Amino acid sequence: MADYKAPLQEIRFVMNEVFDAPALWASMPRLAERVDPDTADAIIEEAGKVTTNVLAPLNREGDEQGCKWDNGNVTTPDGFREAYQTIVEGGWNGLGGNPEFDGMGMPKTLVVQFEEMMQAANMALGLAPMLTAGACLALDAHGSQELKQKYLPNLYSGVWSGSMDLTEPHCGTDLGIMRTKAVPQEDGSYSLSGTKIFITWGEHDMAENIIHFVLAKLPDAPKGPKGISLFLVPKFLVNDDGSLGERNAFSCGSIEKKMGIKGSATCVMNFDGARGWLVGEENKGLAAMFTMMNYERLGVGIQGLGAAEASLQSAREYAFERLQSRAPTGPQNPDKAADPLIVHPDVRRMILTMKAYVEGGRAFSTYCGQWLDIAKFTDDDSHRKQAEGMVALLTPVAKAFLTDRGLDVCVIGQQVFGGHGYIREWGQEQLVRDARICQIYEGANGIQALDLMGRKVVGSQGALFELFAEDMSAFIEKEQGNPALKPFLEPLAASLERLSDVTEHVLEQAQTDPNAPGAASVDYTDLFGLTALAYMWAKIVVAAAPKAENDTSGFYTGKLKTARFYYDRLLPKTVSLAEGIRSGSESLMRHAANEF
Amino acid sequence: MADYKAPLQEIRFVMNEVFDAPALWASMPRLAERVDPDTADAIIEEAGKVTTNVLAPLNREGDEQGCKWDNGNVTTPDGFREAYQTIVEGGWNGLGGNPEFDGMGMPKTLVVQFEEMMQAANMALGLAPMLTAGACLALDAHGSQELKQKYLPNLYSGVWSGSMDLTEPHCGTDLGIMRTKAVPQEDGSYSLSGTKIFITWGEHDMAENIIHFVLAKLPDAPKGPKGISLFLVPKFLVNDDGSLGERNAFSCGSIEKKMGIKGSATCVMNFDGARGWLVGEENKGLAAMFTMMNYERLGVGIQGLGAAEASLQSAREYAFERLQSRAPTGPQNPDKAADPLIVHPDVRRMILTMKAYVEGGRAFSTYCGQWLDIAKFTDDDSHRKQAEGMVALLTPVAKAFLTDRGLDVCVIGQQVFGGHGYIREWGQEQLVRDARICQIYEGANGIQALDLMGRKVVGSQGALFELFAEDMSAFIEKEQGNPALKPFLEPLAASLERLSDVTEHVLEQAQTDPNAPGAASVDYTDLFGLTALAYMWAKIVVAAAPKAENDTSGFYTGKLKTARFYYDRLLPKTVSLAEGIRSGSESLMRHAANEF
Repeated sequence: MADYKAPLQEIRFVMNEVFDAPALWASMPRLAERVDPDTADAIIEEAGKVTTNVLAPLNREGDEQGCKWDNGNVTTPDGFREAYQTIVEGGWNGLGGNPEFDGMGMPKTLVVQFEEMMQAANMALGLAPMLTAGACLALDAHGSQELKQKYLPNLYSGVWSGSMDLTEPHCGTDLGIMRTKAVPQEDGSYSLSGTKIFITWGEHDMAENIIHFVLAKLPDAPKGPKGISLFLVPKFLVNDDGSLGERNAFSCGSIEKKMGIKGSATCVMNFDGARGWLVGEENKGLAAMFTMMNYERLGVGIQGLGAAEASLQSAREYAFERLQSRAPTGPQNPDKAADPLIVHPDVRRMILTMKAYVEGGRAFSTYCGQWLDIAKFTDDDSHRKQAEGMVALLTPVAKAFLTDRGLDVCVIGQQVFGGHGYIREWGQEQLVRDARICQIYEGANGIQALDLMGRKVVGSQGALFELFAEDMSAFIEKEQGNPALKPFLEPLAASLERLSDVTEHVLEQAQTDPNAPGAASVDYTDLFGLTALAYMWAKIVVAAAPKAENDTSGFYTGKLKTARFYYDRLLPKTVSLAEGIRSGSESLMRHAANEF
Repeated sequence: MADYKAPLQEIRFVMNEVFDAPALWASMPRLAERVDPDTADAIIEEAGKVTTNVLAPLNREGDEQGCKWDNGNVTTPDGFREAYQTIVEGGWNGLGGNPEFDGMGMPKTLVVQFEEMMQAANMALGLAPMLTAGACLALDAHGSQELKQKYLPNLYSGVWSGSMDLTEPHCGTDLGIMRTKAVPQEDGSYSLSGTKIFITWGEHDMAENIIHFVLAKLPDAPKGPKGISLFLVPKFLVNDDGSLGERNAFSCGSIEKKMGIKGSATCVMNFDGARGWLVGEENKGLAAMFTMMNYERLGVGIQGLGAAEASLQSAREYAFERLQSRAPTGPQNPDKAADPLIVHPDVRRMILTMKAYVEGGRAFSTYCGQWLDIAKFTDDDSHRKQAEGMVALLTPVAKAFLTDRGLDVCVIGQQVFGGHGYIREWGQEQLVRDARICQIYEGANGIQALDLMGRKVVGSQGALFELFAEDMSAFIEKEQGNPALKPFLEPLAASLERLSDVTEHVLEQAQTDPNAPGAASVDYTDLFGLTALAYMWAKIVVAAAPKAENDTSGFYTGKLKTARFYYDRLLPKTVSLAEGIRSGSESLMRHAANEF
């Protein structure tokens, strides 16, 4: 298997050429003072080195060894402690963090690139900085000044790591029925008791302290989701001088045996009167946690993208190296016993499908990053409002679509290897097992789809969708005269129209049929994602076309040809999805219990 | 996780009611004398017991323990030896075998039902009887009378097991470039030397002897696939009196660490001058091996179906038991904290998708069995010829489509469990890992698709496809007046027309573009499979409708509603597939090497 190499040319192309992020940064004063193109480029370069040279080489063995639990302690695979230390020393945990508390304050259009490289190189280890960064976001947005000063600097540095404790054995999606209790103490702290499961990196040996962000219910809390509060619960209590005090009253009861991401610890956490501090207001914990969740959701989408990129790199190399059978047009490699796999049309279809989803997906994650940057840094209220709407709309698409395609791409990458793809030593099957979790955690993809269709699209009566449609329409309008886009604009406009029609259709159905959004949701998310990727590929064409004319490297001409492939072979899926959605909820809802 | 229970009502429904297999058996004298409905039913009943009570309980632990290799010996997981012995005692290895050599001679329409149950219960162990049965088929069809008498009875009983040795490190799909040599000896035997990999159950401790069927090249063999011969190479040489003699000169060098089917041994086999005997003619080994491969290919399709059925059983049970959130129409379970998952439209979509593919797939495997029975047992030459054509056409569809949907269904089944689906103890993730191999081995699904599109459809200039189209058309014609089919016949006819048009289109393209079949192949196989399943669901409706009128059990009414779901939500995929195929090979073939 090819070792992962950070695809710096691809990343720079998307960030600088497709989205011209430097111009975006320069346009917003609060960002302009922090980042310039040279700094950003140096960060990309260094991120490439760390992920390629430090994280990626540990990925395979991390899967074989896994984490080990012994009497409440978790030992990480060989090399993970040292690699985590490298991340700490490079300040990568705080790349996007608040500079007021020692974060680096870099824009998301840059941070997503680092995240992709980290997750592609080693998803199991990459979960630790990802969760820490998410925890910081929640604390920064909702915590008291005192809590922030006490915890944020060490979390941004990564000397301490963050963890997120939501799920309980009987509740995952439906957090309203959770049982963990938090009882107020006289000193202003709370005493937490209960059991949390599926806690990623809840316990480990890589950081000095682990700060848990725990959802729990106050004794007098209202029932359901409106009675949940968020607490900061450190593994070691922190003294006023910042030194570590006694061990808090909670422990890791066991770690799960899982399908993949075996290098990470997935913990059962038992809280037995643990001391915690309220983050934000009482009974408003779910909102605070969603600050974190929304960050993680794009992050998990990027995990799917990263795994897909890693799979693509290996499969592409294998397709050029492995000799098997002859091309349909006759031997291309007459001196050897067989031609390389890449001569076969169906192998090309596989590699191009991977490439189209990965490169389109990278553009989409950067597109999301762009709206996150505008939402955070613009001084223009209406632009911010637009951006916030786009972020709300696009987050579930990024999470679900990028991870669904992430699994698809990894499965294809495994298929390219034939029988060797099924054998552990080649690494392709690990990517499938690792990528699979991304569709499940941080809100299963069915829940993302409901969020998109129900809360965002129907909930806004289509207003959020209109933001996206207007952005796409403006692009189509602007590029009418662009000769490079000539073959693409018509199908692009048609696919936007299809998506708009279906959106309209579901909005209408939803008025009389409460089941309509749920019946449409997953197919609608796919339809949305495929349409968005068509838009991304059109943007890629705009950026690549001028350079393709004198391109001997194949980089830019390859982009134009892959765009064509995407429009010919993948975008047509939207037709079927739309047809399926239009059939409504009836064929789902008619079955009585004994008819399943 | 629900333990697998053989779905006897479903199986009897398909075999007896949808296909009326007893009438088929009675119509062909050679079969009529061997099997009657009571015998068949007793076999189904007993198969249900053995698979449910003996094989299924070992499945989970077999995955955890895996096989162990030590100095050439392979130890199977706890209980596998005893379970295999139960299979031997029941005569299950020889269920479809030639009665002349102690096989039971049962029809394939019955055998496929047993195969499904066995593979659903325990795919790893199920591979052993499957490979043995395939080996018997090749030996029975191509071996000398002497070889048959010496080996078949003990293979049919399962006292000895069979194994199939094709792949080498540098060649899987492209067997023409293999290197294993067979040198003729004076006594009429051959001396085999070389290394074979990915040899399923090549070594184990469950049977007294293991009979390898090895492809190798004679010293003067022509280059390529026309220079391959097939040899029978027993682990222990067999004396003339049938007793076991000395150990043959080959051994298992190691077993693979794999993604799944860990309870089975996947062996590297080293042949060092091993004694073997020619099966069939010199240099015609590939044809002989294909007798075996074709059998296995349907068998592997059934593995995908079996895994899907197992996943469906668990996911359906979980969806009714797990309480999470409220129905969109308000609480359905007001006394409890939440409603069961099954109230949510998207969960219903998931379960119904699984159900539609599994039950449609079961009908399709029985449909294939029907044509295999006719090909083998009819005395009518033209009917046999038709059946042989159908078998040739349908085999790659059964292998690829049933295993692709097998993975899809298992992934959905895992998704229904949320986070618990990713944890090993629940068993859903094992089904995903196990099912994944079915898309790869016995000819990767891309190869199946090429076989269908290139060799079968284009190779016959569409004649084989016409057989299928005529069978479907005859059904549509015959059922015109059937009121139960009223909502289905029009879309069914439209989907046949779509498939016919696309077939015509590719046939035309192939005349001038050698890449056209390969560019279309995988999407064409999907399109074919989806259309065939629409046909199967229509057949199910015909069988179910009369009984649905007074059905309080929900069994028959559920069939009608699931058919509706299939037509509304899954069949529309054919529209997109057809559109993608029509774009031709250009967008696949334009990329230069540096443009990927």
